[in-house]
Amino acid sequence: MLTLHHLRIGRSIFTVWLAEELELDYQIQEYLRNPETMRAPATLKNVNPLGRSPAIEDDGMVLCESGAITCYLLEKYDPDHKFSPRRTDLQAWAEYMQWLVYPEASVFAPLFMRMLAMRSAEAKPFLESYSAPEIALHFGHIANKLAGNEFILGDNISGADFGISYVIGLGERLGAIADYPTLTAYLARNRARPAFVRALARGVE
Amino acid sequence: MLTLHHLRIGRSIFTVWLAEELELDYQIQEYLRNPETMRAPATLKNVNPLGRSPAIEDDGMVLCESGAITCYLLEKYDPDHKFSPRRTDLQAWAEYMQWLVYPEASVFAPLFMRMLAMRSAEAKPFLESYSAPEIALHFGHIANKLAGNEFILGDNISGADFGISYVIGLGERLGAIADYPTLTAYLARNRARPAFVRALARGVE
Repeated sequence: MLTLHHLRIGRSIFTVWLAEELELDYQIQEYLRNPETMRAPATLKNVNPLGRSPAIEDDGMVLCESGAITCYLLEKYDPDHKFSPRRTDLQAWAEYMQWLVYPEASVFAPLFMRMLAMRSAEAKPFLESYSAPEIALHFGHIANKLAGNEFILGDNISGADFGISYVIGLGERLGAIADYPTLTAYLARNRARPAFVRALARGVE
Repeated sequence: MLTLHHLRIGRSIFTVWLAEELELDYQIQEYLRNPETMRAPATLKNVNPLGRSPAIEDDGMVLCESGAITCYLLEKYDPDHKFSPRRTDLQAWAEYMQWLVYPEASVFAPLFMRMLAMRSAEAKPFLESYSAPEIALHFGHIANKLAGNEFILGDNISGADFGISYVIGLGERLGAIADYPTLTAYLARNRARPAFVRALARGVE
């Protein structure tokens, strides 16, 4: 059976949500952070050498990286392409891939820097001088794209929405989305989805 | 004609290299950083709203994000799958996608933090306390994967090698790969490839 290795709290809840949207049969292996250091437990290194979450196991294969996991799960379990354009529609598929990799490749770093800034008074002014304009740039960009759309690519949810929701949710925890009602509304819509509610019931964030 | 928007110096040289490996017919639109701030020129914002490079234009579409650009170029211009597994070989393709997104999703952030640490004496100790162990973790992981292999997935170059080469090259500039002869040798091998030499001749890094 498909296993989702799920570190609480972190980005793997978005993989649980995807599994629920796909109505997959899966089990969760849960890991808790050290409450002092917030680090993942060493047992995750038994799953993958970097000790990272999310990771999945399926048919004897361990796979890491949220973006790759999304691509794999959709390739295997979404043959009707409800969650991604077909590659024969090449430009739509390319745009989908752009939005799928963008959250972690471009948006995460400045958010992470803001998180670090909260832990160091010495480093904070310098870190914020970089992260504040970058966060504004990216959240403005995402808000523009979402304007008038239910989801990042239009009227239908796609594989790209899971990573976008992750970085917006992280931005919310860091107090960075108050100026973007579009982003707040998007998060609220996604959290109200039955699949997200089921994911929370199983994954507990 | 395919246009590569290429900001010197930066990661877009790896997209030029990919275009040369694929023997594409393309033109380069070059941009130079402000020598004082090292920022990209505002003209890049005419190409894409984030003002980022690499970006490509093909058949009237503008596409950003190195990982998505690689996927698109291979989907369109590598029908024989010389640079990526076929999706029918699902596990090999999933592993390929994992290594394709990994450099920017996981390895870039700690390298970028080291780059920032070099610009701020106040922030440096704090930033290095995070980035140093992370960089060691990732470069050790990549070196293990490369041990005995010519390329990240084995004997043949693939789409995943362009991003991996980017983060290792960045690590080299930051003095972070001296302990990893495997990584140094991998960079040297890639830089000796005729397509890389042609990319440098056209893209100038």
